[in-house]
Amino acid sequence: MAEKFIYEFGVRTDGNAKMKELLGGKGANLAEMARIGLPVPPGFTITTAVCAAFTARGGLPEEVEAQKNAALANVERQVGRRFGDAKDPLLFSVRSGARESMPGMMDTILNLGLNDETVRGLAAVTHNPRFAYDSYRRFIQMYGDVVLEVHAKDEHSHDLFEEILAAVKKSAGIQFDNQLETQQLQEIITRYKELIQRSTGRSFPQDVHQQLLGAIGAVFKSWNNQRAILYRRKYGIPGEWGTAVNVQSMVFGNMGPDSATGVAFTRDPASGENVFYGEYLIDAQGEDVVAGIRTPNPIRQMEKDMPAVYGELTAMREKLEAHFHDMQDFEFTVQQNKLYMLQTRNGKRTGFAAVRIALEMEREGLIDKKTAIGRIPADSISTLLVPIFDGEGKKKAKVIAKGLPAGPGAASGKVCFSAAKAEELHGRGEKAILCRAETSPEDIRGMLVSEGILTSRGGVSSHAALVARQMGKVCVVGAAALEIDYGSRSLRVGSVTVREGDEISIDGTVGEVYLGSLATVPSEVNQVLEGTLAPEKSAIYGMFAKLMAWCDENRKLQVYLNADSPQQAKVGLRYGGEGIGLIRTEHMFFEDNRIDFMREMILAETAEERERALAKLLPMQREDFIGIFAAMGNLPVNIRFLDPPLHEFVPHDEETQRALGKKFNIPFERIRARVEALKEFNPMLGHRGCRLGISYPEVSRMQARAVFEAVVHSKKNGIAVHPEIMIPLVGFVKELRHQADIVREVAEAVRAESGVEFDYLLGTMLELPRACLRAGEIAEIAQFCSFGSNDLTQTTLGMSRDDMGSFLGRYNELEIFTQNPFATIDVEGVGELMGMAVERARKVRPGIVLGICGEHGGEPASVKFAHAIGLSYVSCSPNRVPVAKLAAAQAALEQSR
Amino acid sequence: MAEKFIYEFGVRTDGNAKMKELLGGKGANLAEMARIGLPVPPGFTITTAVCAAFTARGGLPEEVEAQKNAALANVERQVGRRFGDAKDPLLFSVRSGARESMPGMMDTILNLGLNDETVRGLAAVTHNPRFAYDSYRRFIQMYGDVVLEVHAKDEHSHDLFEEILAAVKKSAGIQFDNQLETQQLQEIITRYKELIQRSTGRSFPQDVHQQLLGAIGAVFKSWNNQRAILYRRKYGIPGEWGTAVNVQSMVFGNMGPDSATGVAFTRDPASGENVFYGEYLIDAQGEDVVAGIRTPNPIRQMEKDMPAVYGELTAMREKLEAHFHDMQDFEFTVQQNKLYMLQTRNGKRTGFAAVRIALEMEREGLIDKKTAIGRIPADSISTLLVPIFDGEGKKKAKVIAKGLPAGPGAASGKVCFSAAKAEELHGRGEKAILCRAETSPEDIRGMLVSEGILTSRGGVSSHAALVARQMGKVCVVGAAALEIDYGSRSLRVGSVTVREGDEISIDGTVGEVYLGSLATVPSEVNQVLEGTLAPEKSAIYGMFAKLMAWCDENRKLQVYLNADSPQQAKVGLRYGGEGIGLIRTEHMFFEDNRIDFMREMILAETAEERERALAKLLPMQREDFIGIFAAMGNLPVNIRFLDPPLHEFVPHDEETQRALGKKFNIPFERIRARVEALKEFNPMLGHRGCRLGISYPEVSRMQARAVFEAVVHSKKNGIAVHPEIMIPLVGFVKELRHQADIVREVAEAVRAESGVEFDYLLGTMLELPRACLRAGEIAEIAQFCSFGSNDLTQTTLGMSRDDMGSFLGRYNELEIFTQNPFATIDVEGVGELMGMAVERARKVRPGIVLGICGEHGGEPASVKFAHAIGLSYVSCSPNRVPVAKLAAAQAALEQSR
Repeated sequence: MAEKFIYEFGVRTDGNAKMKELLGGKGANLAEMARIGLPVPPGFTITTAVCAAFTARGGLPEEVEAQKNAALANVERQVGRRFGDAKDPLLFSVRSGARESMPGMMDTILNLGLNDETVRGLAAVTHNPRFAYDSYRRFIQMYGDVVLEVHAKDEHSHDLFEEILAAVKKSAGIQFDNQLETQQLQEIITRYKELIQRSTGRSFPQDVHQQLLGAIGAVFKSWNNQRAILYRRKYGIPGEWGTAVNVQSMVFGNMGPDSATGVAFTRDPASGENVFYGEYLIDAQGEDVVAGIRTPNPIRQMEKDMPAVYGELTAMREKLEAHFHDMQDFEFTVQQNKLYMLQTRNGKRTGFAAVRIALEMEREGLIDKKTAIGRIPADSISTLLVPIFDGEGKKKAKVIAKGLPAGPGAASGKVCFSAAKAEELHGRGEKAILCRAETSPEDIRGMLVSEGILTSRGGVSSHAALVARQMGKVCVVGAAALEIDYGSRSLRVGSVTVREGDEISIDGTVGEVYLGSLATVPSEVNQVLEGTLAPEKSAIYGMFAKLMAWCDENRKLQVYLNADSPQQAKVGLRYGGEGIGLIRTEHMFFEDNRIDFMREMILAETAEERERALAKLLPMQREDFIGIFAAMGNLPVNIRFLDPPLHEFVPHDEETQRALGKKFNIPFERIRARVEALKEFNPMLGHRGCRLGISYPEVSRMQARAVFEAVVHSKKNGIAVHPEIMIPLVGFVKELRHQADIVREVAEAVRAESGVEFDYLLGTMLELPRACLRAGEIAEIAQFCSFGSNDLTQTTLGMSRDDMGSFLGRYNELEIFTQNPFATIDVEGVGELMGMAVERARKVRPGIVLGICGEHGGEPASVKFAHAIGLSYVSCSPNRVPVAKLAAAQAALEQSR
Repeated sequence: MAEKFIYEFGVRTDGNAKMKELLGGKGANLAEMARIGLPVPPGFTITTAVCAAFTARGGLPEEVEAQKNAALANVERQVGRRFGDAKDPLLFSVRSGARESMPGMMDTILNLGLNDETVRGLAAVTHNPRFAYDSYRRFIQMYGDVVLEVHAKDEHSHDLFEEILAAVKKSAGIQFDNQLETQQLQEIITRYKELIQRSTGRSFPQDVHQQLLGAIGAVFKSWNNQRAILYRRKYGIPGEWGTAVNVQSMVFGNMGPDSATGVAFTRDPASGENVFYGEYLIDAQGEDVVAGIRTPNPIRQMEKDMPAVYGELTAMREKLEAHFHDMQDFEFTVQQNKLYMLQTRNGKRTGFAAVRIALEMEREGLIDKKTAIGRIPADSISTLLVPIFDGEGKKKAKVIAKGLPAGPGAASGKVCFSAAKAEELHGRGEKAILCRAETSPEDIRGMLVSEGILTSRGGVSSHAALVARQMGKVCVVGAAALEIDYGSRSLRVGSVTVREGDEISIDGTVGEVYLGSLATVPSEVNQVLEGTLAPEKSAIYGMFAKLMAWCDENRKLQVYLNADSPQQAKVGLRYGGEGIGLIRTEHMFFEDNRIDFMREMILAETAEERERALAKLLPMQREDFIGIFAAMGNLPVNIRFLDPPLHEFVPHDEETQRALGKKFNIPFERIRARVEALKEFNPMLGHRGCRLGISYPEVSRMQARAVFEAVVHSKKNGIAVHPEIMIPLVGFVKELRHQADIVREVAEAVRAESGVEFDYLLGTMLELPRACLRAGEIAEIAQFCSFGSNDLTQTTLGMSRDDMGSFLGRYNELEIFTQNPFATIDVEGVGELMGMAVERARKVRPGIVLGICGEHGGEPASVKFAHAIGLSYVSCSPNRVPVAKLAAAQAALEQSR
């Protein structure tokens, strides 16, 4: 049997909600709604499998063409109208639909099937010429833009179609599109067609089948437009997926006052509150709502305007949540008082809303605990932890406007009125608040780099709200009091003028806009954890605590901290860190006056001189460890020995070099010569890590002694210390053996001197490809191993994180990386080495403790990978602990499914 | 059954020649000689397996002790004497013996079993008190040195035993040891024992069993002395092997004028000539010959001195070669006209001799071709290719002395009289000729860094000759006319005085020493290849040509060249290179005035500016390729696209920057800023390789065009070009795809423009761990892959070759590397990645051509590894082609066995 490329929905429905890979999210859910009896206009979906084929050959493969024609005939039969029929034409919408929703990224065409002839039929059969010509006008405009690519000269020029529209409206003296009369619409149509002829050298196609093919092609092509690529990069969607195309018979929200179109959410997607939420426009088509041309009405107003339909809609809301068990974001059209469902999908929500909705749905019995955990993007728990505006400060500050809260949180920064300006500020390290009348896909780059987004128009389903929700940006939309003037690059509210560059603050939780930069205080969660707020006073803390408890019940990975001081350790402990997975001892050397003793050690010319300098560092290191042991109690504490090249510690300017010489009575020339000698071509691959401890065993000896003397001191104070010593940058097992011998000798000596017995573990970093390959023999000595995924990524990819800036932009454009490998573990490369290492180490030492302590340790996808290859723990910066725990729980649950 | 730790030889013989791993070379061959009926004094071997155990516990394990005692009793029964018997004592020699011979590296003790009582018995039973006390004297001296560690204060002081010996000889007015009388010997013994008491606080041990245990322990310990470690590092012998210990009943070469001791080679180990070769001393013990204290007699003199024994010896020579099928280096002792064989082994030989002996033995029917190929260390073929002294120059030069030719070749340099001085010169980049009366193991470091070695004493089996042979150093020994005065650091020959630092030349092929630095000419092989010498006039060329032909018959690997110019290509072609495996196109940019156009390109701010500069480089690159295609004819030519970071091309000093600015009319500040911007923290991991071609596609486009236009030009001239384009530093398959698209487009364009059809291959380097891991998907695009083993080693080990100097010394000392991984492929790490890559690439594209073009491509062990993992070719610098071919043939033969 031939492969099936076309799936129908309507009376006959081929697909269902589970077929998102093949049908895209939109197509699968249209099928699902049809299947369960919701009122869906019939149509069909061209599968994602066709996308690549279409791109490759620039047209539909023959067999697809045939299947499409058959499906089209079926739709004609169902609705009782024919495509291109001059008397009573069947019209179509053509929409993209990828596996994951990418709102606003790709193209849509409505009213397809209208031409100079069918428009007359439509006018006659509906007895509504205004409606027919309005539909035709819209169709030509969309088709001209999307398929024929009649665009403005550049992003600063006006859209050419909009120019014509505005001109006719102006000469007719009217404000809104729905005030246009038939004759005016016809004039617009004429001028649109002239524009197309002028721009493309061809007339607007009258053949409806040619129209359809053109539209399908444009939708497939739009998968690879710049906007879509940028979006995919941000959200890690592979370009290989492709989009499906949905061809659906049209229903009309623009047939007069008994028609409408709208979008709705089954719950508030910004705050997560369980209220019906959305907006609609009377006598309008779908795009009008999202485009923000007319500000739509809040959904509740429909209760008055169209009470019967509103009743149906709220019933639909219940039905959708009951069926899909998740918050739905759906589109509907009312055609002459009849409700049609055009789309439903799991609603995008802010991180904050994600947490709240998941927890509340569990409480309501809609989903179980495990599903709830899986529903919350692990990163989104951070939104509960970010600082909020200080209540006192807010009282004193001037609220200049109120809008709709579309992205919770507090943001301050300099106002800017264009994406370019926002990028410029960001490039200078300054914070920007992007302020637009409304946003469009062209603003996405600017939104990405802004602290917050503020619009004067548009509702909660406007582009700005949608994107902010997904990016997790602070956002206020529809603050109508703001008069934005792009020309003078300023905004006015009554007598107040705010110019580009002035500071403002926005509170996306309540929808308020303030003059100036407001002070912030810790989040409620942190206030509770720090003891300044009673737990029962904070619902947010309650959610946090509940979620963390669920995670602890379900995860298998331990979550440790990367911490270099007792202070950092305490922060991590409050978030539930279960040990320290990495102390970078060198950080301790940079503190205060120690750096000079470190320098004295480095400048030493003999082992004896070096030992004298080390003797001064010893008590300081010991005190550090005592402090950390005290903070950590009986939890494991992993101490990594000196790692960075010595060059990082010495001064490079003559003045400091001379001062240092004076202090330690060393000739300046000797210092300069030593600093010169320490320079390396590729310091990352140079004299660092265990290579230092091997060249200067007295350094390792000092560090081991500091650890063990601190252990003895702590044990005497009743602390059950669990120290782990970690040797960095091992590539050859003999390196580890050499350092292990030193550590063992020192341990013996300290035991003998103190008469105190203590245990410790000795292990190593796996941060070189060779170490991963030789993990078997390394595990003969190492009692634990921790992947240093930063260095391992640098060496496996042969790519220096510090130097990749010069080509990263280009690599992103070309999608050479699916994800930045320094943010998310490169599973195919680095990940394979890690997997091999795990297998080999476990073969030799089955119970070996394996973890990861690179920055990947706090990144959800990497945490899940760590779980998948069977690591024992991840170690991350203290404030990433909640994220790591959630990701760990999700990983465990995903695996058990 | 208990493990067998002791293997006997004599009437009962447990071992044989194949058991070298367990018995060491010496032990295995003693067994073999006993087995085939040669006169071997009975004894036993303690296996290498005991070495590690002994080192760990500091003594013999109990079961070994028991087996040893049983074996000792067997020896006693065979020789009819008892160990420690006061009347007729059995004496032993105790010698080391590792799997591979390490001459002079470890310790030996003779005459063990003598004490104040047994010495009297020995005197009585041999009726030769002088002999008995001489033996006792020697024993105490050796035992004191080796076991009791009574040493000189430092390397510049006299040996304390030698001091006593010299003092007694002086006061007795005699020159040679064998002139000492019994009473003098007894005085020496008394003073030796006092010295030992003074130095160690204990008296010399009288218990013979304690003596034996001490000696065994000292031999095991000597495996890990500094000399032995240095030697192992040089020759890649793993420390894990350990040494065996041979305990053998003594026979005496010092029983008077009817006794002698000697060493002999079945052929000349320096020149390879098929003559009986060696030397001996009458009335002496083994160590005397090697130590060079008395200059021994050439072996042929024995024909007169001891004709019967000489007859037996020449018979032995025949027997040994017939049995072992290789040139043997053997030790013998004549005790009262009876010949005993004490050792035989495959003789170390110079590289030159290795070639000659193998070829001649094949001709003589002793071995077959394949064995002959296997006999020649691949590196040694280089000795046929090194420059020789110019004959005209030699005629004019002053020959100041003649000695024995002990290491063929020509060397000039500054005279130095100590190893330290040689190292100092070497450190300054100067050439040294190490000149010593005789050398000792302490001189090895100096010998390593010298161009040549010259001694005034000692024969062809002296330490200097032995070591030079193995190191492949130019060497002249026993140039007796030289009077070396360490005090004034000069040497005299008649009226000529040569001071340290003066230049001399030595010809190790003929044994001549010249004043001054002599000019050299190409080797005979190169003279023939260059057409300046008729092939039939050079026996050396004859050997070379024959050997190369044999290699070509047997090898499977192709041998390609790394060449960047037609000149280099021609050199490699003369040696039989079969294609170019790597053209580093960037080398072409450094030439002449091109560098400035390259700089113009780099300084360009837009793609257009860049293209203008590239347009100037295009014809130059094209000409380069035309030249190389012309040189290579129909052989494959592999062109690697631009690889190094751009920073390497720009000037870093202000003056050149200003000049450049003037030339191209670019403000100096812009140049400086651009140079600054190009600086990288870790350039090796930065913006280089294909990352350049991706950032600046116009560069790849220019390079592709230069290649293809050159191809068209060459084809028009009737050359059947086989171009291969190689994309460097690929880690992600999309990188390769991006560059492949550019190359394909340009190829299409050039085909269209020229109307000439041509083929080409497109491939990539595998030089990053990630590339090896992803070799499968890379092979979907790449038609060939070449391992860039230098970069692959740097990234796999996380070790920069340029920066490892700061810790390499320490790493060598600690034997962290078995071999320098940048010289020989790190099989366990880098090698595993290579093996994986081969497997994965072949799975996707079974016929894919895989090679290696790092510097490892010309190193024998790495070539063998390349064969083992199934590569198609190695590519190396032109003058390494013969070495690579020989190694390739050996690899194929080893595999087929």
